Amino acid sequence: MKKVNLYEAGEFGEAAFRRLLVHDSPHFKIINFNFRPGQELPLHSHNIEGQLCMMVLEGEGEFLAQDGTLPAKAGDVLIADISEPHGLRAKSDLRLLVTIAPPI
Amino acid sequence: MKKVNLYEAGEFGEAAFRRLLVHDSPHFKIINFNFRPGQELPLHSHNIEGQLCMMVLEGEGEFLAQDGTLPAKAGDVLIADISEPHGLRAKSDLRLLVTIAPPI
Repeated sequence: MKKVNLYEAGEFGEAAFRRLLVHDSPHFKIINFNFRPGQELPLHSHNIEGQLCMMVLEGEGEFLAQDGTLPAKAGDVLIADISEPHGLRAKSDLRLLVTIAPPI
Repeated sequence: MKKVNLYEAGEFGEAAFRRLLVHDSPHFKIINFNFRPGQELPLHSHNIEGQLCMMVLEGEGEFLAQDGTLPAKAGDVLIADISEPHGLRAKSDLRLLVTIAPPI
């Protein structure tokens, strides 16, 4: 059992978004991404089995998808196959929790 | 790909905590629990393989563990084996996201 506070552990970076590996096990990988306005996780996909969950903790932006964008705000949970193109662009400081199962 | 906003979809209940099944697939199960002050997910465990992640979105309380409690507040992520006793007790309105992999 382990505990981490994302508001305390997760940092922001001016040059690029920051990434905190929260957990990695055979069951799932959990990563916290923090974005300054304008920073983004580019649209991408992996041609493998599995799904991911993107949860916005704080801030506003948009999820990137194959066919456009979806508004992203605190409390939003987006679930996609890892093989579906996905990404996120921040419009404010934005904290994101990404869970990937099985881990990649 | 699907999106849900937990602040809009997740409800509270006076008689007992409320549970919203966000997602269930062969990869993971994602559940949102909302608690009023004093409500709790009792200490429990399952004797199976896998891990869970409990993420506090909002509110204050305490995580329940075999050997005591740990403070729980917004931004806290607790990771445990499903076979380790775990639970949560709320001290304020509290929103929790639980991810279980593999799903049970």
